[in-house]
Amino acid sequence: MPTDPHPFPHRHLTGIYGLQPWEIAFLLDEAEQWIALNRGTAKHDDRLAGLTLINAFFENSTRTLLSFEIAGKRLGADVVNMQVAASSVKKGETLIDTAMTLNAMRADVIVIRHEASGAVQLIADKVDCPVLNAGDGRHEHPTQALLDALTIRRRKGRIDGLRVAICGDVLHSRVARSNILALTALNAEVRVVGPSTLLPPAIERMGVTAFTDFDAGLDGADVVMMLRLQRERMAGGFVPSPREYHALYGLTPERLERAAPDALVMHPGPMNRGVEISSSVADDPVRSAITEQVEMGVAVRMACLDVLTRARRGVPGWN
Amino acid sequence: MPTDPHPFPHRHLTGIYGLQPWEIAFLLDEAEQWIALNRGTAKHDDRLAGLTLINAFFENSTRTLLSFEIAGKRLGADVVNMQVAASSVKKGETLIDTAMTLNAMRADVIVIRHEASGAVQLIADKVDCPVLNAGDGRHEHPTQALLDALTIRRRKGRIDGLRVAICGDVLHSRVARSNILALTALNAEVRVVGPSTLLPPAIERMGVTAFTDFDAGLDGADVVMMLRLQRERMAGGFVPSPREYHALYGLTPERLERAAPDALVMHPGPMNRGVEISSSVADDPVRSAITEQVEMGVAVRMACLDVLTRARRGVPGWN
Amino acid sequence: MPTDPHPFPHRHLTGIYGLQPWEIAFLLDEAEQWIALNRGTAKHDDRLAGLTLINAFFENSTRTLLSFEIAGKRLGADVVNMQVAASSVKKGETLIDTAMTLNAMRADVIVIRHEASGAVQLIADKVDCPVLNAGDGRHEHPTQALLDALTIRRRKGRIDGLRVAICGDVLHSRVARSNILALTALNAEVRVVGPSTLLPPAIERMGVTAFTDFDAGLDGADVVMMLRLQRERMAGGFVPSPREYHALYGLTPERLERAAPDALVMHPGPMNRGVEISSSVADDPVRSAITEQVEMGVAVRMACLDVLTRARRGVPGWN
Repeated sequence: MPTDPHPFPHRHLTGIYGLQPWEIAFLLDEAEQWIALNRGTAKHDDRLAGLTLINAFFENSTRTLLSFEIAGKRLGADVVNMQVAASSVKKGETLIDTAMTLNAMRADVIVIRHEASGAVQLIADKVDCPVLNAGDGRHEHPTQALLDALTIRRRKGRIDGLRVAICGDVLHSRVARSNILALTALNAEVRVVGPSTLLPPAIERMGVTAFTDFDAGLDGADVVMMLRLQRERMAGGFVPSPREYHALYGLTPERLERAAPDALVMHPGPMNRGVEISSSVADDPVRSAITEQVEMGVAVRMACLDVLTRARRGVPGWN
Repeated sequence: MPTDPHPFPHRHLTGIYGLQPWEIAFLLDEAEQWIALNRGTAKHDDRLAGLTLINAFFENSTRTLLSFEIAGKRLGADVVNMQVAASSVKKGETLIDTAMTLNAMRADVIVIRHEASGAVQLIADKVDCPVLNAGDGRHEHPTQALLDALTIRRRKGRIDGLRVAICGDVLHSRVARSNILALTALNAEVRVVGPSTLLPPAIERMGVTAFTDFDAGLDGADVVMMLRLQRERMAGGFVPSPREYHALYGLTPERLERAAPDALVMHPGPMNRGVEISSSVADDPVRSAITEQVEMGVAVRMACLDVLTRARRGVPGWN
Repeated sequence: MPTDPHPFPHRHLTGIYGLQPWEIAFLLDEAEQWIALNRGTAKHDDRLAGLTLINAFFENSTRTLLSFEIAGKRLGADVVNMQVAASSVKKGETLIDTAMTLNAMRADVIVIRHEASGAVQLIADKVDCPVLNAGDGRHEHPTQALLDALTIRRRKGRIDGLRVAICGDVLHSRVARSNILALTALNAEVRVVGPSTLLPPAIERMGVTAFTDFDAGLDGADVVMMLRLQRERMAGGFVPSPREYHALYGLTPERLERAAPDALVMHPGPMNRGVEISSSVADDPVRSAITEQVEMGVAVRMACLDVLTRARRGVPGWN
């Protein structure tokens, strides 16, 4: 039960960790209005007019950057992108110097993607404006978890009590981590499924059940959430060939039979078709929610940008 | 004679191929208002306010991207650029996945450049919004042909009956292809001029006359349209040195004497000065229309963006 | 004394050279209003609405580009960035062709950064709109000097009579050059301090005093302006190791003792911490003005963009 009269008493969104269930639900509720707006022709709201949104991306990203850029522009913000290869940033001090620079330019909200876990929190601690994590290392990718939760809630009518199987390279995945946090908070039954070398040790402490047998893990699942196989993150460990991986852990129509009859198929994109997911599954017009996830992404990011800037915009009750 | 009451009954602009002469003329007519707007100080119209224009460029381009970006912003659209080196896109499916992603973000118009012929049509077939081809492989570059036609029409007062010589690497040129389609549709007498290895076989079937002798091809031309020599596209064929090329097919003041006394000189840019064109010809204050082509480019693109989005903006008569 | 009734009778801002002291002061005065706007929440003014600002950056830059982009957007301009690696521009003619292209697209103001000294003036001579130099080779970086002067004036209440020590690689620094011109025009006592191999010959002719002994140069300084050590610019000359450089010319707390007790510490960024400046000095909450410089940068650039476009916007008295 919320005792705080403020529905989202956080200055930043650096992760799902630490959010209360009703706070997550509040962001999802807020996103609904933006889905409607985005489906119309004139997709514009002026509530962020005169505010400066800086997308500071220290790691390559096409989709997430595009999604945040569109979200900011549709809300009327002045959006500027700063794309810096993390390799050109040599030392931790320099990251903070960059943050202080963005702060001194009087950014109103900063969206950060960084290859290092914790880099976003480091910046959030230093600047005067809200910071939104667009993915940091293996740590968190909170807006991905929110858009996934929103997609599930709209398709299934609820999240509470659903059996969700998160499948693949859980170890290296910030998407998995944020989704586990969000979905367990919203009372789903979460399973992680993958080769033991790609499952974090003691993952059960996060309140999930681990399966190394794909078929067993999928059994009766209401939602099958596939992860992108990112071979470049596997240095030093088990690096399967795409064909090996597909044979063992690719989602095929046959495997999907193990899940519930109306199971939802999800993938954060971009997909390696024929590796972690078969094309026929990805393109299933009834079960696949993959393009819907992309649509929910813009709406969720608009909600986050709106909510996080309410205090500085002087919205009554949000100080 | 147009029997359709709709002056431009096409959802996309993937090429000049398939357009009727009056439809081409309609786009040129529409562009005139934007030339006037752009020559003033406050170059702004709000008709695309609230619409999202995505420039998806899978091939490097500075000028064309800039031209579309400026066109979209002057019409009030929210413009976002996605620049992806085509090399990072491995498979055909991924291109369609990218298209579905842009579609799911609820783009209102997508401008695409791609190194593969046909890639733009592939995307157009999949998305819900209008698609504009900004150049695909050796296939088409329709806005270039439109801006060239507009430049000729304004300078010469007409296109009908003019003798236009398109000179250089016709084989690899989408600019040549789109121009041949547009200019023959508008009843110009079109010649292509170049070394036989750089002329497509059976080019005469497109309604043009082919010349391998530059002087003969230029004879009496009202318009001399030079193509950019793109040596990187000639792998496996005849690759002349810049010096050789200039001696044989460079447009010099002496060669230009063969054309009509008031011949117009055009080039799509960027120029290889001293290769396909001499600097003194490029900079001829009377005959050269090269910078005017650039200006017409922004106007033509504004016209295309406006016309293609009329149906979704609910402009009366455009559904 | 200004005899011209026009407070800034220049079409371009290619450098500080040639500006009168009252013209510099006028730009600083104009910037004050933008500091105030930027410190509020709705940081927006519409005076550049409908104008097209092109940031043409032929040399990599993150901060300066971001600062100009934010400045232009806060003034309501349509801002487009063109980032071209200078390496892809082979010949001088091509630079002019690029400039003519931007001009033909009817830019209203062009901001240029280029690795070659004089490149900005070359473009300014060719185009119809105001050109703003964002740094060209070793030549000038006028908005950096303006933001530095504004920072000093606000912190110290004046510039006249202050002792300013500009320290480091003066030879390769356009920042040093523009600052020397601005600060001597505003009647500061300017010193340059560095190894003799990094001081330009006959630098005294610019009205400054040269010191190779760091401690002597700092003696009684009211402002200590450190330069970034740019080892990539030192090809062929003395290239110190970072450690050597820090020992001899790094600003440490001990060295800073030689300056005036309330000396201001400045750095144009990005800093090489531990090389030309110690972290404890850079982060000194009282003496360091480094993040304030960044803030002043946006304000000064807004002032320049506003003032340079007044004639074309038809502001009374500015034709």
